[in-house]
Amino acid sequence: MATTTSTKSEPFSAESYFATQPPPSTLDHDIQNVRSFISRQAELGRNVVLVTSGGTTVPLELNVVRFLDNFSAGTRGATSAEYFLQAGYAVVFMHRQFSLQPFSRHYSHSTNPFLDLLEIDDKSHNIGVSSSQSSHLLEVLKTYKAVHNEGRLHTLTFVTINDYLWLLRAVSQELSVLRRRAMYYLAAAVGDFFLPRQKMSQHKIQSGKGSLIIEMDQVPKILKPMVDEWSRDGYIVSFKLETDQDLLIPKARASLERYGHQVVIGNDLNTRKFEVVFVSRDEVGDRSSIKETWLRIDPKSTEAGKEIEEDIIRELVQRHRKWIEGGQTRN
Amino acid sequence: MATTTSTKSEPFSAESYFATQPPPSTLDHDIQNVRSFISRQAELGRNVVLVTSGGTTVPLELNVVRFLDNFSAGTRGATSAEYFLQAGYAVVFMHRQFSLQPFSRHYSHSTNPFLDLLEIDDKSHNIGVSSSQSSHLLEVLKTYKAVHNEGRLHTLTFVTINDYLWLLRAVSQELSVLRRRAMYYLAAAVGDFFLPRQKMSQHKIQSGKGSLIIEMDQVPKILKPMVDEWSRDGYIVSFKLETDQDLLIPKARASLERYGHQVVIGNDLNTRKFEVVFVSRDEVGDRSSIKETWLRIDPKSTEAGKEIEEDIIRELVQRHRKWIEGGQTRN
Repeated sequence: MATTTSTKSEPFSAESYFATQPPPSTLDHDIQNVRSFISRQAELGRNVVLVTSGGTTVPLELNVVRFLDNFSAGTRGATSAEYFLQAGYAVVFMHRQFSLQPFSRHYSHSTNPFLDLLEIDDKSHNIGVSSSQSSHLLEVLKTYKAVHNEGRLHTLTFVTINDYLWLLRAVSQELSVLRRRAMYYLAAAVGDFFLPRQKMSQHKIQSGKGSLIIEMDQVPKILKPMVDEWSRDGYIVSFKLETDQDLLIPKARASLERYGHQVVIGNDLNTRKFEVVFVSRDEVGDRSSIKETWLRIDPKSTEAGKEIEEDIIRELVQRHRKWIEGGQTRN
Repeated sequence: MATTTSTKSEPFSAESYFATQPPPSTLDHDIQNVRSFISRQAELGRNVVLVTSGGTTVPLELNVVRFLDNFSAGTRGATSAEYFLQAGYAVVFMHRQFSLQPFSRHYSHSTNPFLDLLEIDDKSHNIGVSSSQSSHLLEVLKTYKAVHNEGRLHTLTFVTINDYLWLLRAVSQELSVLRRRAMYYLAAAVGDFFLPRQKMSQHKIQSGKGSLIIEMDQVPKILKPMVDEWSRDGYIVSFKLETDQDLLIPKARASLERYGHQVVIGNDLNTRKFEVVFVSRDEVGDRSSIKETWLRIDPKSTEAGKEIEEDIIRELVQRHRKWIEGGQTRN
């Protein structure tokens, strides 16, 4: 086997992780901005969702050339953020550098390149959008400008898993002032393994002769402290991505039971654009059991622009409303 | 040590690599398009440069979730391609999916997002570019449109190191019909290690408990067959990126001596935007020695938009002209 797992090293807890791994240098600055964003939203009585998106990397060297990467274009996160914004939420969009972003995602550099939309007027040298392209762009652009004018979107960038973990903790703690009005939509594809700073090679690993052996530690399970300590009563949605259909439901259920948060959205790598399963607790009276709710769309409808994230967010917004109301009844 | 190299497995040669690793499914289609592009350029008497750009990934699973990634935004390659186009070359731009591209690179999603350039006219609902932004965009857009109208840019995409190696071989073989008029500018950040298909895990590696150990094979040195077999008399420029300044020159010299191509451009990760070193053979009469030529720009000038790639490409275009003339004298 070229890839194996061993059990020889003691796994990091979230606590020992943050005690031994250094925070990113931009953390304080980032969090100040998040704090003022959240306090403006709180004043305006808006619900706020943290959307994490894109993959994380694990640098193998201090002067970084090589990474272990969980690559993700960030389609799920960027698309979801757009539907949250359409539903009136304020969004903290915390994404991997270079992954897709709400609105601009419609015009990537490869598909639908934006320079192709533009025309130069021969006489005035003014630049305009060709009329054939303008109706779709007009919709996107109007929402984009409205969201920015209303100050409802705040963007944060991470690259490594260390950036991600520090940011997630700090943003969650800030967001927790909103209690039940905060949602945490954890769509980023977070790696399971990392290389502690103390074990990293200072310079580029020289290839020389022969093969490379990398031994990595397991990333601590941060959903546990997130539920128990960082986000007070917030509505937490995590994702479980598998390639083996048979593992999807058991692993999603296990995650919900282990961490005690609100929803695990399970998806299979090959069908994730057409179906997802919501795994959540079904509370009937005093009894609580775990239920599964499938959301499916016709694969053909995606050609006409239908996106399953529209249905995911509609469902979550409803559930979140009930969650907020539940809190009000109780308090 | 968390990362070590061992010598137990027999390294792949280029020959055994291509004999055992499957080609990407799109290869034939891609190469047909490259062939007709090159034959149009040949008819028009244009010089053609292959620019490779961005990093490669090594999938660790067949149903890919995890990669080992040599990430690179592709700034060097995308910028260089633009200067080659300005110098009249036709360009085959072979880049990593989602890495930067010539022209659109000026308007990434994060810095200078293009949606911010656009304004909606209140009455006509026409979309235009705000006049404050329009002068820089006008320059970029004019060149972009001219290059496309003249059919001088052909773009190819790769993701994995396997895609890259198969494409590089096939494109080089196509380009070799141009003999000395072809240049190969290998700016992609290619990984040194890979996981042979035969050793890959079918599904997502389960994290379970404990650490992950990955053992990878060394990527074959393809500059050797590239010089000796694939590109007949083409002008080959390779890059050497190091983080340890002391290793830069020795490794660049060793590479030139080993493969016998025309230029190694050495650069240090931390200073690569301000200085590079050309390592090449200095032929005086019958004697041949290796010389180093540094190109440097004032770091302050980059704030005003100066790019070192402008000087790199100017120098290479001159050297390539001499190389072409040398061939004509000899034949």
